[in-house]
Parts: sequence; structure tokens; C-alpha cells
Amino acid sequence: MNLKSYIREVADFPIKGISYKDITTLIMDPEVFSYVIEELYLRYKNKNITKVIGIESRGFIFASALAIKLKSGFIPIRKPGKLPYLTMKQEYKLEYGTDTLEIHKDAVNKKDKVILIDDLIATGGTAIAAIKLLKKLDVSIIDCSFVIGLSYLDGLKKLSDYKIKSNCLVTY
Amino acid sequence: MNLKSYIREVADFPIKGISYKDITTLIMDPEVFSYVIEELYLRYKNKNITKVIGIESRGFIFASALAIKLKSGFIPIRKPGKLPYLTMKQEYKLEYGTDTLEIHKDAVNKKDKVILIDDLIATGGTAIAAIKLLKKLDVSIIDCSFVIGLSYLDGLKKLSDYKIKSNCLVTY
Repeated sequence: MNLKSYIREVADFPIKGISYKDITTLIMDPEVFSYVIEELYLRYKNKNITKVIGIESRGFIFASALAIKLKSGFIPIRKPGKLPYLTMKQEYKLEYGTDTLEIHKDAVNKKDKVILIDDLIATGGTAIAAIKLLKKLDVSIIDCSFVIGLSYLDGLKKLSDYKIKSNCLVTY
Repeated sequence: MNLKSYIREVADFPIKGISYKDITTLIMDPEVFSYVIEELYLRYKNKNITKVIGIESRGFIFASALAIKLKSGFIPIRKPGKLPYLTMKQEYKLEYGTDTLEIHKDAVNKKDKVILIDDLIATGGTAIAAIKLLKKLDVSIIDCSFVIGLSYLDGLKKLSDYKIKSNCLVTY
């Protein structure tokens, strides 16, 4: 399936010069959305994944459906102040300033085998922050999957520097 | 299944006096998460639902998994500024001030039969705003489902005033 034809490119969003990759046109089509989840499922079905980790908030869309299909638990990594219980925090750099991701401290433990899912990897800032959170909790990260990878940015290379395997269904 | 026993109550979150209903302890358990999605699936499997609408961002977790199971499309309703294409907007009141929800104008049309999914209904402010958005787009709203309903607030009553059927899996 030519997934790219279902991803809408929106010029100058969120700022001038960016061609935003809009996945809403992909997930609104039942066959295409099912195809994406099935592809991820086939990749992980024999890996005994205990928990699927999704990054807020577009990551939730793919991670939760995949968790159900794999019969795994679903764990959200969220923006600061959203998770109500004890959390681990990880700051990361943005072009200007910093942002933070959080995970519940009791969300995973060292017996878990997890995969990390997000809709898109660009510079890898959020993915690396998420991996640092999971490493702090001493969990086995099997793999990362992204629906979209932007190969002209260096996010995928950064993940390989961390010795984390990663996959993208679509690459620009 | 006693779903309430999997929902963590966190005192004084996000502000003093609120007992926050934390669904992360429910969705981290594969059997319990699957049970919730299955219950929703059984409710809607024969209704020819074309699209499942999820409200950002905890609503995404249940709505996207349900969409896959129903073989429906998934449509996000988001906080302002997040959707990249042409949107409809709907303001709604908070205790202090207002907030806004958005949906892509081309996300649904009058041929669609949709259900609206969120994790929790309290005062109903976001659910009513979401329904107004869908009505502006002239779509048939079959039903709303929430994992949790707070019966001491009047959200569910407000929905019935709008002649919208709704269901909750757990009520407090």
C-alpha cells in the first residue's frame, strides 16, 4: 500500500517553511489505518511484548490500537503535569528552550519488554527523552516504531547511537 | 469485571479537593484494557459505524483501539492549534475562562454514522462542545460512550437534553 498517498502535506504548518505531515487523512480511512496497525502487529507479534509505550498525543492513536492487537498493556508518556501519580521526568531541548516528558514510576519495571511508538520522528528529541525515561526505569526496550520518519533530520541516526533499533513505515 | 478496582483515585489532583480518576492503571493491564475495548465493540458492532471520534488526548486511547476493532475510521477532536488543515472551532466554558475544541472540516460528512468516545464525562463541557462541532458538520451522531461517568456532576443529564444517548462503563 502506498501510505504516502494517504498522508496530507500541509505547507507552512505550524510555522512558515515546514511541510507538515498530516496523518489524520490516513487514520480516517479504515482500510489504511488497519493496514498500518497490522504492519506493526506483524513486526512484534512473536516478541512477547508486555507493554506498548505511546508518546502524547498522536502516538497514543497508533500505540493503543497496537497494544490491544498484541494483547499488551498500554503506557502513556505525557507532557508535564498531566500524569496524576508519582512520575519520572526527562527534560529535552527544543529549537528555543526546553520541554519535558513524564512517565508514571510504576508504569513499567525491569521484567517488562516494551516497544516505543510515535507517529513521526524528526530530530528525535522526544524519542530520545522517552528512551531515557524508560532506561531510568530499567526496562528492556525492544524496538521503536514510527509511522513516518524524516530522513533529512537526524532522529533515526541518534537512535542508532543509543543502540536502539527503529523502523518507519514511511520515509520522507 | 470490577473495573473500578483498576482505576486509581489520586487525591487533590489536579487541584485540592478533586479525587482524580486515573485510567493509566486500567490500560496498563492487558486483560482489563481488552475487556473495556471489547465491551465498547459489542455495543457498536452491528451499527455500521463509519467513524469513531476521540477527544484529545485520553479519549484517543480508547477511540483508536475501538476504531480498529470496528473497522471504522478514526477522527481526532483536538485542542486549538493542533490540527493543520481547515477546521471548525467550538468554544466552551471552563470554571474560569473558556477553552476551544477543533475538528478538521473534511473529517466527517453527512453520510457518516459516528460515535463519540472519551475517557470520562464530568460536567460535560468538552462532550457538548464536541457534539456541537459534529452537528455543524451535519453528521449522524449515534451515541456517546465514556469509560467513566461522574454522576454527581450533570454531564450525562446535559447530553440527554441534547437528545444524545450515552453510556458509561463505570459510574462514580
